[in-house]
Amino acid sequence: MMAESQALVLAPIGIIHSPYKAVGQVPRQGSGRDEICQVEVFGEFEEGLRDIEMFSHLVLIYWFHRSAGYSLSVTPSWDMRPHGLFTSRSPRRPSPLGLCVVELLARERNVLKVRGLDAIDGTPLLDIKPYFPHIDERDST
Amino acid sequence: MMAESQALVLAPIGIIHSPYKAVGQVPRQGSGRDEICQVEVFGEFEEGLRDIEMFSHLVLIYWFHRSAGYSLSVTPSWDMRPHGLFTSRSPRRPSPLGLCVVELLARERNVLKVRGLDAIDGTPLLDIKPYFPHIDERDST
Repeated sequence: MMAESQALVLAPIGIIHSPYKAVGQVPRQGSGRDEICQVEVFGEFEEGLRDIEMFSHLVLIYWFHRSAGYSLSVTPSWDMRPHGLFTSRSPRRPSPLGLCVVELLARERNVLKVRGLDAIDGTPLLDIKPYFPHIDERDST
Repeated sequence: MMAESQALVLAPIGIIHSPYKAVGQVPRQGSGRDEICQVEVFGEFEEGLRDIEMFSHLVLIYWFHRSAGYSLSVTPSWDMRPHGLFTSRSPRRPSPLGLCVVELLARERNVLKVRGLDAIDGTPLLDIKPYFPHIDERDST
């Protein structure tokens, strides 16, 4: 149980510029939205983007910087009654990590232009991973 | 650019018990593997698991605790020549965050039995999200 008291420290690798300037403007999910976001990767990490244009879709992980606190019981988007927090995608969670699969439209040096992202303007970016349908999709019931 | 120097602190919500005891035993991806892992959620977060059995698949985010350092140029699993780090799923990255879609087989109190997870034994668990095909899958080229 050593891990229970362990503090894990991250630093952003970039920042997300989005048309959603206030919490109330952010869609519940970016999927299916037409808005374009600019994902700025800090210059020191630009080399890590080489050949990323080979991928049509990426997985972004980011920090819900506007989220504060959480409840373990929430009413998720898919029902009218409360369920456990981990059945929801609420930004208010113990580890305030956001996750979104986005479409990569273009890259200009250290900036990625993406579609389908539901993050608020100024969101700290933590990671970019290539999206692979054969490992990221499951036959779900 | 304030975010560049910002330190973001996380604490694990649980720990992953897996049959992979050494780095060399961990498959490149858990997808398609039959091994069962036990995802132990710390007791203080157990209430957040209520009704999670309604989902056949979950997204787990965890900390690559055995990873140290990174290179911005790597040879990814899908090619023989080097590309940018963010085109790879390597555990060695600026934010050492692992991501896996797993099949939920059973839950016993605060322990989830899952299949398809590629994490090494003792991996700190950061988050659990429900997997929704309509938002987590994309037509990728």
